[in-house]
Amino acid sequence: MSAFTAVDVIRTKRDGGALSDAQIDWVIAAYTRGEVADEQMSALAMAILLRGMTSAEIARWTAAMIASGERLDLSSVSRPTVDKHSTGGVGDKITLPLTPLVAACGAAVPQLSGRGLGHTGGTLDKLESIPGWRAVLSNDEFTAQLRDIGAVICAAGAGLAPADRKLYALRDVTGTVEAIPLIASSIMSKKIAEGTGALVLDVKVGSGAFMKSVEHARELARTMVDLGAAHDVRTVALLTDMSTPLGHAIGNAIEVAESVEVLAGGGPADIVELTLALAREMLTAAGLPDADPAAALRDGRAMDVWRTMIRAQGGDPDAPLATAAEVEVVRADRDGFVAGIDALSIGLAAWRLGAGRARKEDAVSEAAGVVLHRKPGDPVRAGDPLYELRADDGKRIPDALEAARDAVVLSEQAPVPAPLVIERIA
Amino acid sequence: MSAFTAVDVIRTKRDGGALSDAQIDWVIAAYTRGEVADEQMSALAMAILLRGMTSAEIARWTAAMIASGERLDLSSVSRPTVDKHSTGGVGDKITLPLTPLVAACGAAVPQLSGRGLGHTGGTLDKLESIPGWRAVLSNDEFTAQLRDIGAVICAAGAGLAPADRKLYALRDVTGTVEAIPLIASSIMSKKIAEGTGALVLDVKVGSGAFMKSVEHARELARTMVDLGAAHDVRTVALLTDMSTPLGHAIGNAIEVAESVEVLAGGGPADIVELTLALAREMLTAAGLPDADPAAALRDGRAMDVWRTMIRAQGGDPDAPLATAAEVEVVRADRDGFVAGIDALSIGLAAWRLGAGRARKEDAVSEAAGVVLHRKPGDPVRAGDPLYELRADDGKRIPDALEAARDAVVLSEQAPVPAPLVIERIA
Repeated sequence: MSAFTAVDVIRTKRDGGALSDAQIDWVIAAYTRGEVADEQMSALAMAILLRGMTSAEIARWTAAMIASGERLDLSSVSRPTVDKHSTGGVGDKITLPLTPLVAACGAAVPQLSGRGLGHTGGTLDKLESIPGWRAVLSNDEFTAQLRDIGAVICAAGAGLAPADRKLYALRDVTGTVEAIPLIASSIMSKKIAEGTGALVLDVKVGSGAFMKSVEHARELARTMVDLGAAHDVRTVALLTDMSTPLGHAIGNAIEVAESVEVLAGGGPADIVELTLALAREMLTAAGLPDADPAAALRDGRAMDVWRTMIRAQGGDPDAPLATAAEVEVVRADRDGFVAGIDALSIGLAAWRLGAGRARKEDAVSEAAGVVLHRKPGDPVRAGDPLYELRADDGKRIPDALEAARDAVVLSEQAPVPAPLVIERIA
Repeated sequence: MSAFTAVDVIRTKRDGGALSDAQIDWVIAAYTRGEVADEQMSALAMAILLRGMTSAEIARWTAAMIASGERLDLSSVSRPTVDKHSTGGVGDKITLPLTPLVAACGAAVPQLSGRGLGHTGGTLDKLESIPGWRAVLSNDEFTAQLRDIGAVICAAGAGLAPADRKLYALRDVTGTVEAIPLIASSIMSKKIAEGTGALVLDVKVGSGAFMKSVEHARELARTMVDLGAAHDVRTVALLTDMSTPLGHAIGNAIEVAESVEVLAGGGPADIVELTLALAREMLTAAGLPDADPAAALRDGRAMDVWRTMIRAQGGDPDAPLATAAEVEVVRADRDGFVAGIDALSIGLAAWRLGAGRARKEDAVSEAAGVVLHRKPGDPVRAGDPLYELRADDGKRIPDALEAARDAVVLSEQAPVPAPLVIERIA
């Protein structure tokens, strides 16, 4: 018989106490084995959400989730390893140009990604619009590609932090997603288990992000940076603006196309700015502070790594991408400037067009999404196109139009530009 | 597709909001049908425990639980109906003498009871130590016995408040028992569904009770009295002391024997006092304020109803009750007075002796329990017996001795007697 019971652990947290190391180790292990039931873990998650956790509890909780599975050994990779994680935003395709760019500058990027759920897209969903590309690699394939090319974007294997996998699915259906201790430990347990030596976090703030306020984003970032340090992973976080979608494309294939533009030396200014800011942080964290990522974009080295990386996973970087059967263009009804474009509304519109999924088992449309013709600060004249909605099925357009209706705000004066990178936490 | 989702309902309460009538109706009905999962309901229960509920929410929640099943129709019973519910205590066998006593005075008592879980005993467990007695009656048998004899104690049928049945089992394993809105709605939904016209609540306060403080007990009592009034059930509550076990016997068969002593006109003073106090409240609530329950105990009318009631359910009121194979007597180590006997410790000892169950599927021992030889206020001399432990299996004695070790406190001066009935709430 165990020295613990689930009810005692739940009561401790419910009544505002701190869980002991032994309680945390037991409850995570017993939950992974199925001995603590889902209904018990969800009650505990709600108590954690409402009562909070101390730093010591969060550290132990994270360690217990890592210990629930395997931790990859990347010691056979000679280059320094560094990864990036974004808390999720609308139009956030930064991983796509960033991974080959940082690899082109001398580091190795072991990027284990996920699929999207809700209005923020998933990196794997985007890459799967490249004909032939496959997301699932064995651990050996993963390590070999990292060694040979320095860049991998693939699905996290089932052996990494299985406790987190189970808990994440549970939180999603029980209203317990929005707890900083649980968000931080979920992200960091997976990143630490993947074996990276350094990590840069892109913590999004604003309407299209999970964290709506700078204060909450800062707390989450600080918690994760401390967790990284405790596990010998050099970790830095940037808080970045997600009140406006990133770039012009919000969808799957259209985000791949925009990423390729950036790798070709062009692309939207905000995507280039954020890609370079994160690349510099990653290279510094990897011990390569003198690398010049802007040069690697200009001279095509990043593009070369991209093409090699896509081919290594079966993809054809030259194959045409899917296009949408239905396109609806929305135009300005007067002259002025674009004062703002609400990220959440555009994300929701893209989701309704088919770019995202409502349930894990749903498929996403490759071609669907929103293309912004204007960005904040741009002047417009009445009749100019503001954005277009793309879908495989025209019946999806009306609901998406409804979601996007008030997304673009016009003003008579040009707005004051807001900084993209808000704060750095190390 | 429903207008509601479980996650939205959970989030409303999690964030401190009040659930709408429509949200409550939906979530209770969907949970009863199995469309809201256990892990979702347990997260909601934890949010309710930590965030609370308004009076309006509790009223609607209770109504929705009643509506999840049938409500019995007792209109064929010509006498006024009145029931009693105790929140549970150690040695609380009051239902046994009280039900026939109130029936002997002209009311009908439709007592649907439960089995015990944890250190407070269950009325059905006690009665099942009478050879032949059966707890399960059909609705027709129940109504007929109520009509003919005026007294029934039996198990609640599965058709009454099935939502509560499901939720109660869930709360038990998820650390969400101790929420006043959930306790109040659980008790009242079952009592209102059973069809009684009036109800007297015995809300226990003290170490052996669920409510440790008068403030919490008062809040629970007030909530339940208001719920009764809202459903046209005249409801009164007494707050009564449960820092000391009731009577001398704590177990199953030994509590039946003590109840029969009371019905025979004897028995411990505290049992007689509380039985009469509750009988007077019940008779007044039933519109029979002039009835004289003390006379009905003295002249044997209550005993006559008891014997008829037990026989009607197959029991033999004259059959010998089980006796324990192992008895351990604990004696005073000095002279003095009994200052107090801790109800929780004695309850736990009885439970460890086999009188109670750890899991729903466990059987209880008929003969096991604790017999108190002295009560608070009694003088003792060194070597006098204080209490005895009884068990079918001697191996249970040491753990029970350990639980009871500090239960009896001796003092040099006689203690000031504490009132048994603390407060009346109507």
